Amino acid sequence: MKNSARKAVRELINDAKRIVIEDVNPAVDDGRFAAKHIIGDIIEVSADVFMDTHDQLAVNHLWRTNDSDQWEASHMIAVGNDRWVGRRPLQEIGLYEFVIESWYDRFGTYKNHLIKKIDVGINVDVEIEEGFLLIKETVSELKKVKRLDIEFERKEAENSHVSNLANLQKLAKVLFKIKTSTCYLTPDEVKPAETLLKQLNPYSDQQRASLIVLLADFTAALMEVSSTREFLTRSQIFPLRVERRAAEFSSWYEMFPRSQSGDPNRHGTFEDVIKRLPAISAMGFDTIYFPPIHPIGKNNRKGKNNSLTAEPTDPGSPYAIGSDEGGHDAIHPELGTWDDFRRMRDEAQVLGLEIALDFAIQCAPDHPWLRDHPEWFNWRPDGTVKYSENPPKKYQDIVGVNFYAPKATPELWIALRDIVLLWASEGVRVFRVDNPHTKPLPFWEWLINDVQEQFSDTIFLSEAFTTPKMMYRLAKVGFTQSYTYFTWRNNKQEITEYLTHLLTGDATQFFRPHFFVNTPDINPFYLQTKGREGFIVRAVVAATMSGLWGVSSGFEICESAAIPDKEEFINSEKYEIRAWDWSSPDNIINEISILNRIRKEQPSLQTHLGLTFHFADNNNVLFYSKSGKPLPGQPIDSLILVAVNLEPQYAQETSLEIPLYMLGLDDHVEVQVHDLVSDAHFNWYGKWQRARLDPQHYLFVIWKVTPVTV
Amino acid sequence: MKNSARKAVRELINDAKRIVIEDVNPAVDDGRFAAKHIIGDIIEVSADVFMDTHDQLAVNHLWRTNDSDQWEASHMIAVGNDRWVGRRPLQEIGLYEFVIESWYDRFGTYKNHLIKKIDVGINVDVEIEEGFLLIKETVSELKKVKRLDIEFERKEAENSHVSNLANLQKLAKVLFKIKTSTCYLTPDEVKPAETLLKQLNPYSDQQRASLIVLLADFTAALMEVSSTREFLTRSQIFPLRVERRAAEFSSWYEMFPRSQSGDPNRHGTFEDVIKRLPAISAMGFDTIYFPPIHPIGKNNRKGKNNSLTAEPTDPGSPYAIGSDEGGHDAIHPELGTWDDFRRMRDEAQVLGLEIALDFAIQCAPDHPWLRDHPEWFNWRPDGTVKYSENPPKKYQDIVGVNFYAPKATPELWIALRDIVLLWASEGVRVFRVDNPHTKPLPFWEWLINDVQEQFSDTIFLSEAFTTPKMMYRLAKVGFTQSYTYFTWRNNKQEITEYLTHLLTGDATQFFRPHFFVNTPDINPFYLQTKGREGFIVRAVVAATMSGLWGVSSGFEICESAAIPDKEEFINSEKYEIRAWDWSSPDNIINEISILNRIRKEQPSLQTHLGLTFHFADNNNVLFYSKSGKPLPGQPIDSLILVAVNLEPQYAQETSLEIPLYMLGLDDHVEVQVHDLVSDAHFNWYGKWQRARLDPQHYLFVIWKVTPVTV
Repeated sequence: MKNSARKAVRELINDAKRIVIEDVNPAVDDGRFAAKHIIGDIIEVSADVFMDTHDQLAVNHLWRTNDSDQWEASHMIAVGNDRWVGRRPLQEIGLYEFVIESWYDRFGTYKNHLIKKIDVGINVDVEIEEGFLLIKETVSELKKVKRLDIEFERKEAENSHVSNLANLQKLAKVLFKIKTSTCYLTPDEVKPAETLLKQLNPYSDQQRASLIVLLADFTAALMEVSSTREFLTRSQIFPLRVERRAAEFSSWYEMFPRSQSGDPNRHGTFEDVIKRLPAISAMGFDTIYFPPIHPIGKNNRKGKNNSLTAEPTDPGSPYAIGSDEGGHDAIHPELGTWDDFRRMRDEAQVLGLEIALDFAIQCAPDHPWLRDHPEWFNWRPDGTVKYSENPPKKYQDIVGVNFYAPKATPELWIALRDIVLLWASEGVRVFRVDNPHTKPLPFWEWLINDVQEQFSDTIFLSEAFTTPKMMYRLAKVGFTQSYTYFTWRNNKQEITEYLTHLLTGDATQFFRPHFFVNTPDINPFYLQTKGREGFIVRAVVAATMSGLWGVSSGFEICESAAIPDKEEFINSEKYEIRAWDWSSPDNIINEISILNRIRKEQPSLQTHLGLTFHFADNNNVLFYSKSGKPLPGQPIDSLILVAVNLEPQYAQETSLEIPLYMLGLDDHVEVQVHDLVSDAHFNWYGKWQRARLDPQHYLFVIWKVTPVTV
Repeated sequence: MKNSARKAVRELINDAKRIVIEDVNPAVDDGRFAAKHIIGDIIEVSADVFMDTHDQLAVNHLWRTNDSDQWEASHMIAVGNDRWVGRRPLQEIGLYEFVIESWYDRFGTYKNHLIKKIDVGINVDVEIEEGFLLIKETVSELKKVKRLDIEFERKEAENSHVSNLANLQKLAKVLFKIKTSTCYLTPDEVKPAETLLKQLNPYSDQQRASLIVLLADFTAALMEVSSTREFLTRSQIFPLRVERRAAEFSSWYEMFPRSQSGDPNRHGTFEDVIKRLPAISAMGFDTIYFPPIHPIGKNNRKGKNNSLTAEPTDPGSPYAIGSDEGGHDAIHPELGTWDDFRRMRDEAQVLGLEIALDFAIQCAPDHPWLRDHPEWFNWRPDGTVKYSENPPKKYQDIVGVNFYAPKATPELWIALRDIVLLWASEGVRVFRVDNPHTKPLPFWEWLINDVQEQFSDTIFLSEAFTTPKMMYRLAKVGFTQSYTYFTWRNNKQEITEYLTHLLTGDATQFFRPHFFVNTPDINPFYLQTKGREGFIVRAVVAATMSGLWGVSSGFEICESAAIPDKEEFINSEKYEIRAWDWSSPDNIINEISILNRIRKEQPSLQTHLGLTFHFADNNNVLFYSKSGKPLPGQPIDSLILVAVNLEPQYAQETSLEIPLYMLGLDDHVEVQVHDLVSDAHFNWYGKWQRARLDPQHYLFVIWKVTPVTV
């Protein structure tokens, strides 16, 4: 074999990793995207780590935050079958990164073998000599090390390097002296492994002296930090985004500010919105979301019910953004001034309400950009601009931008980002993004990252009613939350299958489902046909299943007047100013307030995670539990149980199989129950319980179950 | 914003991929390792491919084999929810590579929109102009293209480029002429989409002439090959190894050649083995596997029953390889010469038997390498060599090599590979590798790849009784097949759980389980306690569940004499020469022959894939079906059903739920049944059938079920 071939094999050997690190968790697409967590979470990191032989490995997880290049290392623990785990509390908002590293623990392996031999009491003279040599070799390696791997080491590494060397040299000297006479380290320096001391009795004084040094925790710790870390392997870097609580837990109320005057003939203002805030806050909502509040296009403006020609008094769709009065960076003059906006924002904040704005990228034909930046749009051979279309449908009041037009990169991208930054700087940190799936994924990945670098608490809700893969990908590239198919999942099988889909596999790591019961665009058949009871049922299911739920104004008074055979509202607020009677006798304001109150009290209801479906023998009764996000290493100590009547025009009776096993309890024991709606307290005996969910009485129950305290 | 920042954003936009290609299948660890297939398989490639907008994409899969750098491209088809599929027959042994690519299909999108507009009969004058411009733009882009992307294109790309350009220029001219007068292409050149012709009636002659050209398949095809492939995205390269049939389907018989003399006092020879071959072939085995056949160490040789001191007549363990008579590249003199070995190999081949050898890397203390290459071994401070050990156990007759000793890389690695190459060049293409999990993974990845580059039909069986992750990783780095935990999975729950584990997730792509019913090291309690019936049951389960099964010599005469309370043989052939009475009345030679005959006849039994468990209401009856490897796009047209009595000392009665649904049949229909053991034919009515599995009659059934032919 030629020398060059020999050299190639040697290089291959040196490059190949002897230790395997795989199946790292949390990880989204093998680290391509960030897993998502909430500040205050304690997360468990895990990985399969192994190599050939039965020898010992050392495994660390190393962390750094976005604004630091200093890695903090902690040990991971083997939990069987090559799986290693470590934990870390997440205490800052922002982007974290972590890495798993492992190396061959030569001294640990040596010590482990030595202990096994001492256990059976065999002669270990040669083993003592081997330990002495290991320490001496480590000393000489430590002397050779010129430059530590600074990227991954602590800054004080240089100093500890010097003191490790001194300590090891001392250890080596001690062991050398033991070989010739009898000598101990001071008791402070060497804490022998107590349980082993007895087993050392059969050995000679000199052997015991050496063994105490070799088996001391002090020695092991020193050898570990001084090790050259043979076969060191590091995983790639895995990102992890830590967000504020509202990313996962929030209750949204959507409204058109222009419909808040109480008079269909008067355009509502921010001042009118301020008057509505106490009622919304009293229902327990914490986010108030407005469709676009910018000037509305006058060219090709849509009339009532989406008609092609508008009357002079028609206000147009707020999604047709921009006119001679300004674009995305302006406020519709009829709503008020910037100062009015700021006052409303501040009044809302006092009441615990946060403003969420719509980010809808399309432009009305008279948006200033068509004049100032024609190069961002598509033009047709006849000189007209290309309207948005979904052939054969055309949307004559809006024009889409062309993200990849030659002169749009990067100017258009930057202009759009700057709009978000403008509103963020005005205190808006929640954006509901209109149809993000029709804009490029790289655009969102860049924009969200860029905005969150400046305003780390910014939340983006994706309004992507599209294929599941695209919905998930938008979440991966950075969207904090997403609209879902929830609005069309009504019966037991549909809801069970859909939630199981959301709770299975990687999706739990990056996808946070926002359950809107209705929107200005979606007036579901279920609500059109099930009356007031249907509204209550949908509110219960949304509010208890996900940490994120929302209603569109009118839901609380059971508004569902529809265009016949369509899931669309008739006389939709999208195209006209409406006035509502909030005191309508059919309202469900009390029920909504109860739901939001319970959500605030019960952490298990503040996330969609920890949802489990349970057996109810009536197919019209949906029965499930919430146990919250799993706390690493801790058992579940209480369960929220929800049972709800999905066909609420009729009473439903059912047996419920209470999941006592989830509390670690036997099927027949007694448990404490707290009815969170009525505040009643009582006890149950055994796992089979009956319930009657009756429109005359109550349609749903929310119980908190805990073991009986002794 | 500074120009430099602007430039950075533009570069980011250009680098980012607009089109997503994810979840590619087949893929092992996202393409890090090769998926495994067998020559003759037709595989289905699939991926999620999508981008923003509802516009159309084009998706290809491209293939090349190891020895070609030329990629062959084929279209993939969208099957819903962003999933795309393509198929390819695998016709050569070796390493394949494939890539998925996608680009924005601008002309396809245009044509699709145009058709939708024609459907509703609206004016399309501007659309015709847009189509004309698209073709003109493509012409001018085609003129600009200097150098095609040669890595991924056909060699004749240059020529087709010229002819595409000419054809497109002609098309553009035709369309230009239509604008000014009326002109058609020849009917041969443009085949209009027939079904559309009628819908063109409302349009003027001139419009129709243009539309016919724009909608022609010829135009679409030309535009596709001429496209500059906007937003072209390519996946990484995914490897795929295609192996010969025996990688997946083989029946192994293990024997110690030295025990084939029929006389415990005479060392058997290859000549004795030749005499045994007809009997082994008659049982239907096709692979005959020998523990090491090399010279056996004389120092520290083990005596009978693994005793520390050997009598002068004791032959030693063949796993203590090497003595003054030679090492891994030599033949134990008492077995015969190289010529004897070759004659045996050839005689075996005539009978359809292939020789498999053991590759065990450890050395006896007197292996020539300890003298010639002391630098490959570990030495202790007292000057002795470090024996293999699993503290406190020591293996005094073997010494392990140190793969990472400074002077062992690469010399030791090359020496070991050359041993495999030596035997491969002697016609041995199947190696059973001893304890591969105690040797470095990078070593195996390199060695297997290197050997298969020279001898592509080489098969490596991994004898890794270790953690599941390590077993899987060995399969990923290249081992063709693996020993499993099958030997210790006996009752219905154990077998069901284990097979479900092997058949779930990625493992099916790279892990081929070899079901040995016993080995010289494993004498399972089940076989020790269930008598002859137990042997039959285990043979049935192994031979019908996996394409790969094996027995160790003695199994056919139900040998299970054990060291008390251990799963070890007493007087094991590992440490002494044995003689056996093959005509023992308790033998199960007939049953084994029947099983191997049915395996050869039924392709569904030639793989572990396509196994499904079914309901039998008796927990001592295991009931399952085999449907073979799924053929892309084809329904299952027959099922092999196996029912077997797992507590075979007693008769078991059971109801069986026949999975008629897998054949696409209703629960109550009539089906044809062929009893593959007795060759009886009969019909069943409906899915519920009864069976009695009785030690007095038969313990198992193997039926082939097909729909009734009309």
